[in-house]
This record gives sequence, C-alpha cells and structure tokens, in this order.
Amino acid sequence: MAAVIIELITTGSELMLGRVLNSHQQWICRQLADAGYSVQRQVAVPDTASAIQQAVAEALTRADWVITTGGLGPTSDDLTREWIARLLGRPLREDAVILAELAAFFARRNRPMPPRTALQALVPEGAAVLPNPNGTAPGLFVALEPNPFRNDNRPAWLVMLPGPPRELRPMFADHVLPRLKGLCPLPVPCACRTLRTVGIGESQVEQLIDEPLRGLIETGLELGYCARPGEVDVRLLARGTGAERMIAQAEQCVRGLIGEHIFGQDDAELDRVVVSLLRERNRTLAVAESCTGGLIAHRVTNVPGASAVFLGGFVAYSNAAKLNLLGVQAATLERHGAVSEATAREMAAGARSRLGADYALAVTGIAGPGGGTAEKPVGTVFIALAAAEHTWILRPKNPFDRATFKFVTSQQALELVRRTLVTENPQSI
Amino acid sequence: MAAVIIELITTGSELMLGRVLNSHQQWICRQLADAGYSVQRQVAVPDTASAIQQAVAEALTRADWVITTGGLGPTSDDLTREWIARLLGRPLREDAVILAELAAFFARRNRPMPPRTALQALVPEGAAVLPNPNGTAPGLFVALEPNPFRNDNRPAWLVMLPGPPRELRPMFADHVLPRLKGLCPLPVPCACRTLRTVGIGESQVEQLIDEPLRGLIETGLELGYCARPGEVDVRLLARGTGAERMIAQAEQCVRGLIGEHIFGQDDAELDRVVVSLLRERNRTLAVAESCTGGLIAHRVTNVPGASAVFLGGFVAYSNAAKLNLLGVQAATLERHGAVSEATAREMAAGARSRLGADYALAVTGIAGPGGGTAEKPVGTVFIALAAAEHTWILRPKNPFDRATFKFVTSQQALELVRRTLVTENPQSI
Repeated sequence: MAAVIIELITTGSELMLGRVLNSHQQWICRQLADAGYSVQRQVAVPDTASAIQQAVAEALTRADWVITTGGLGPTSDDLTREWIARLLGRPLREDAVILAELAAFFARRNRPMPPRTALQALVPEGAAVLPNPNGTAPGLFVALEPNPFRNDNRPAWLVMLPGPPRELRPMFADHVLPRLKGLCPLPVPCACRTLRTVGIGESQVEQLIDEPLRGLIETGLELGYCARPGEVDVRLLARGTGAERMIAQAEQCVRGLIGEHIFGQDDAELDRVVVSLLRERNRTLAVAESCTGGLIAHRVTNVPGASAVFLGGFVAYSNAAKLNLLGVQAATLERHGAVSEATAREMAAGARSRLGADYALAVTGIAGPGGGTAEKPVGTVFIALAAAEHTWILRPKNPFDRATFKFVTSQQALELVRRTLVTENPQSI
Repeated sequence: MAAVIIELITTGSELMLGRVLNSHQQWICRQLADAGYSVQRQVAVPDTASAIQQAVAEALTRADWVITTGGLGPTSDDLTREWIARLLGRPLREDAVILAELAAFFARRNRPMPPRTALQALVPEGAAVLPNPNGTAPGLFVALEPNPFRNDNRPAWLVMLPGPPRELRPMFADHVLPRLKGLCPLPVPCACRTLRTVGIGESQVEQLIDEPLRGLIETGLELGYCARPGEVDVRLLARGTGAERMIAQAEQCVRGLIGEHIFGQDDAELDRVVVSLLRERNRTLAVAESCTGGLIAHRVTNVPGASAVFLGGFVAYSNAAKLNLLGVQAATLERHGAVSEATAREMAAGARSRLGADYALAVTGIAGPGGGTAEKPVGTVFIALAAAEHTWILRPKNPFDRATFKFVTSQQALELVRRTLVTENPQSI
C-alpha cells in the first residue's frame, strides 16, 4: 500500500497581503509528521470562489486527503463551505442539531444570535459534522468514494476546518487524526522521536552522530536535522515491525554521543523543562537581565505554574539600575565595565540575596547594533548562575541580529540552569 | 492591461514536517502588497525533483511571475537550481565571476572553501545573477520570453531566491522589486496605507468607519481589516490617477473617527512608537511587571536604542518581590490583594522612585490558567502609569489563553504610555 498523500489548503485574502503569519501549516504538518504521516503540498489562496475551487480540484487529482482551513465563519468572506459544496455538486442542507447548538451557544453568553450565524448550520449533502466546542463554526468531513477528480476509483477525503487556532487544533486532534488513522492506517508501524538539543551547531551534531548511526540508516532509519537559532532538532524515524526497537537503539546511540546537549524530546521546550526541574527539586529562581531585557523572565513566566518556582527578576538595563537595584559595586563597573564577568557575578549575587532565591541567573552583554568596541564587540556576553556554594560562568559570543542575539542568549542562560540542576542531581534524570 | 499574476513557491522538506514556520510567504506578500501587487497563490513543497518541478510548471501555466525560495545552498538537499534548470531545458554553466566571489568570501573569513561550494556558481543559460552580499548563494532571474508553459506568447519571469531571511530580504528589495516594477509596471498608479489601531475591536472599527467611507468605497476605495490579538489594521487601497488623493481623504476620515486608537501606519510597531515618543520628549521609563512577567521590558528592549530611555524594570512575580523590591505595603496586599488597583499604584510608584524614571508602568493581573476567583476571575488586570503629578489607571478584562493574555496586556500597557505621551504634548503629533 502506497503512502497516504495529504495536501493542505489554507484560505484567506489576509494571507496574500502578508498581514498575518500562516501558523496552521506548521501546526498541522507537525501533528501529522509525529503520527507518521506527511504532507506533500501546502497551498494558500485568497478567499475567492475560483481560487478555492481550483486549489481543491487540483489537490483532489493528486491527494488522498485534502484539508482546508478557514472560511467557515459567519462573515461575508467566509464562503469556503459553499464554494466547495458547489465544486463537489453537493447541495447544502440546514442541520437542525447545529442550529440548536448555535442558538444555545449565544443563549449561554446572553448575546443575541447575529443574523448570518445560521449559515454555519449548512452542511453539504453526505458530509459528517465535526463538533466545535470552542466556537460556532463546526468542521465538515466529506468522504469522496470514489473521488470524482480521478478516474481510478480511489477514494479521497476532504476535511474543512475553521480558521481560529483554538477551534482548529482540538478539532484536528479529536476528530481528524483519529479518522485518518482509522481510514488510512499506516501500511507498517511507524516510530518517530525528535531529540531537541541546545548549545551545539548543526554541522557539529551531524559530524558526531552521522557515522555512528550509519548501520541503522542502512537498515532503514531516517535521520533528519532541523536547525533554528539556538537549537537543533535530531529527528529519528523508522518504519516496519521493528520500528520502536530501531528508534530506541538510535536514541540510545545519540544520547551516548551528545546526551548532555539534549534538553528534551518531541514537543519539549527549554523554558518548560527548566520550570519542571525547579519544581521537582523544590528550588527557586531569580533573574537579573541586562542585554536580554526581560526575555528570560518572559519565557519562564510563559510556563503555567511558573509562580511556584520563579520569584522575580530585574531588568537592569542601565548602570544605575545595576548599582541601585542589584548592588553591583561602582568600582566593578569602573574597573571591568558593565559587560564583564565580574559584573555578571555581582548581578547574580545581588538578585539572589534580594529575592532570597536558591539560584539567580544574570546576563550582561552587547546586543547591538550599537555599543560594540574592539575589545568587546557586539555579541559579547557573560552569563552567571549563582547558588549558595558556587557561581557558574559562561562567556558565549553571539554576533547575531538583535532579536536572534536575545533569543540565543536566553537559550544559553536557561541551558546553564538546566545543566546545573541535572548535574547536581544526575541520578534523577 | 490585466493585473500581474504572482505566485510564490517555498521549498523545504522541514516545512512539510512542521519543524519550522514559513515566514517567507508573509514577508514577501507584504512587500508586494504594499507596492500595489498581490500574490495569487502560495505553495510549499518538499525538496524533491518531482515536487519542485511540478509546482513550478503548474505555476507557470497561470502566473506572470513565479518566485521560489530555498534550495540554492551547497548541501545535498539544495537542488532547486538544478531541477528548475532541467525543467526549463536550460543547461547550467559555471560562472567565473561568482566562483571568484565565493573564493573571496571564504578568503575574507580565513576559512577553506568547502568542496560543494562551487555548485553555487552554476547559472542556467540565459539567467541573470542576483548578487548576495549577505551569503554565498546568489539569486537567479530567468526571463521566459515566451513562457513555454503557455501557448499565448505571453512572457513570464522566474526568480529563485536563497532561503536564509537575511539573504533573501535585501535581495528581494534591491533586485526583485525594482525588476518587477520595471518589467510589469502597475497599469494605473496605486496608493496603499495601513492604519494600525489598538484598544478597539474589529467589529467596532467596522461599525465606526464603514458607513462614513461608503462614498469613497463606491468610487473605488478598497477597504480591508486585519485583526490580530490586541490590534486591528485598517488597510486602505486606491488605484488610478486620483489614488493618492483618495487615500489621503480616506485616512483623514478614519483618523477623524478613531484617531485616538491609531498608533502608527504601515510597518509601525507599538513598542517602537513608544520608544520614539520617549526619545523625542526626552523622558525615561521604568516598568514593574507581575502578570506580564517581563514581556513589556522585552518588547521595549527589542527596539534598537531603547537604552536611551528605558532605565530598567522589575518582574515582581511573588508577593515578597512586590514588598521587598518595590516597597508595596503589606497592608495593601492584605486589604486589596496582589491583583488590585492599590497594588498597581504602589508598584508603579516604587519602580518610579527606585529607578528615578519620569514614568513607571506597573501591571498586575491573573494570567491563568490557575489563580482565578469569583470576584477576580482569570483575565482581571490592573495597569498603572505613574508620573510626577498623576497616576493613570486601566482596568481591562483579558480572559484569554496565557500567551494571548500576556501580549494583549502588554499592548494595553504600552498604549497607555503612548496615549499619555501624546496627550501631554498633543500639538506635536
């Protein structure tokens, strides 16, 4: 049995104007890839009848599954449902259950039902309705058996999902992926693992693991890399009855070679990992940021439950703030400069004592574009992590644009916390 | 003359796995839209010969301009150049000038030239080379006169751009857009303005401006909205000899109706606007953040030159931090709670005096998912902006997911600073 061909069509004129970022494509592709399926094409088109109909018709000449997003709402440019129904030659019928649910939705919120709402109760003949507990527009699922756009009697499935991410995502997970797995099971079992690394470049990862994995690659392991600023993913995929065993072997091999750089797997995020480790160990954290300007605190507080371990932070952007808020000595600033190991140490010690934290992380550096000198060029960074008995220091060079500089520096700082926590209690990892 | 049809093809297997976000589509579309052109279709395909060739061939049956991104580098999956050259039946020739530049690039960096680098000097017969001062892979520009994928003698242009954003963006601006404007000038002049608003919902904007603009819409004004959490763009576009005048009229009308919500136009960002206003007025800012957890400081310090006006901040996540760092009274916390107007006022006053700033912004609220009560549900927020003579207060309700909550709250806080600065010196805006 050949692999399932899946194509994705996102609709929206605002996408064509570049006013919004298309995040659906990435999210859906990742869900599918982690389940062993892969998307063969992503298409985005404006909200016009001809563009949407042409894109869907073309996709159905190639694909087994076509997933559209957007255009199911009640406004005048939400016509995806109607145009696709016409393309398929399926009349739209008002669904009494959906209509009652729409009325209940507005009743619960004490709001009158806007006049065009009822459009969302229209269902193409023969389509199944995918419930939407997070909004008003249900999704639609149409089995094309056979697919009228091919002449080989092969069936196809067309899924229409609403545009808002908080409606689309649960609907995809709860109603689309299970149907896909049921109707088009993978021909053989598939196992996939993504090991997420930090503090090591893509070519270095490749150099270290490619050769040792050669034997497994020759027997079917698929190895891939994805590098983003500050992190590199190693993706391992295997198919067949021995897939899980092969992945376990490959993972063990990779962990043996670059394990200290692996902060998690699959959907792990470094900030979440750090908060979890602090919670497990019942330790608290404070931060004192200069060049990262609040990004480390922002990332830590993005994690629900961070308040249990994160006591607070300082954004000590000016020298005065370093002196007055953190107690950095004037002599230190004068002798070593604001961007120095000595200043980073005193910032960390100041934040730790002022907030009474177990650990305090301090960062000082030159983000650029201005402020660099010959001795301390743009990209110079000092990171200090202070604990009761010891202070750890990193001196990375991050000669990047301002946004990348801030993110990469925050990665290095969080990684220093993670490593320290793991190393202090290595047996529990 | 009909409108120019432009299609975009991004290539990359990592896009199909959902491991990276496709930001090229948005960026290129926005540049084109602001110049009066629009993209009719965006396609993303994996790095395989058949997928890329099929996508390019299909696009050339419809489009006047086809722009591809990615796959021009030196690694083994960078084969876009070769596959497209084959599709067009144009042999690849090594270009001596590019080869010399590549050698010079590595010589300047004191690095040996990796063996596959020379692939980047291959140029399809008849193609023009787009210089890449920011990397090694030049772009390629092929005029298809006529376009072999149509039989109407209409020409087409194919552009291949490198994948890294810092290489692609300047190349597009310096070498692609000018060629597009030269070869396919807009049939009539076009004027476009995007007015960026904050603190007002999409439907409210629509209700206020749609009717008053009716007359202009009937004579050709194109009006569009784009809503994202915390902001709504109003996009005005007109074509024809009177386009500039029509846009000026429309802008005046919109500013008259919702002017106080407009923080800037086109590429303006609220954080940049706030930093500019502070610089112009020679005022300094400090922040004291609880529920935004550092995001406001992060956004302000994303702006190059922020250090001239931003003195620093506190992330006072715990009650202890509010007491010890900011001098909030224990009695205030006890009587009113950490999430209260009284606490926000004392946080702002504390930050202002400790950092000696002209203005201090304080935010306290319940981000959720935990921590809400019947009296103060998740989404409750108090924002205070303290100056020498007065403290301004906002009490928004932001019942969103955690990330949206933080962003929307940071927008409201920055907007409070902007409004205050503008109102105190209204004549200068």
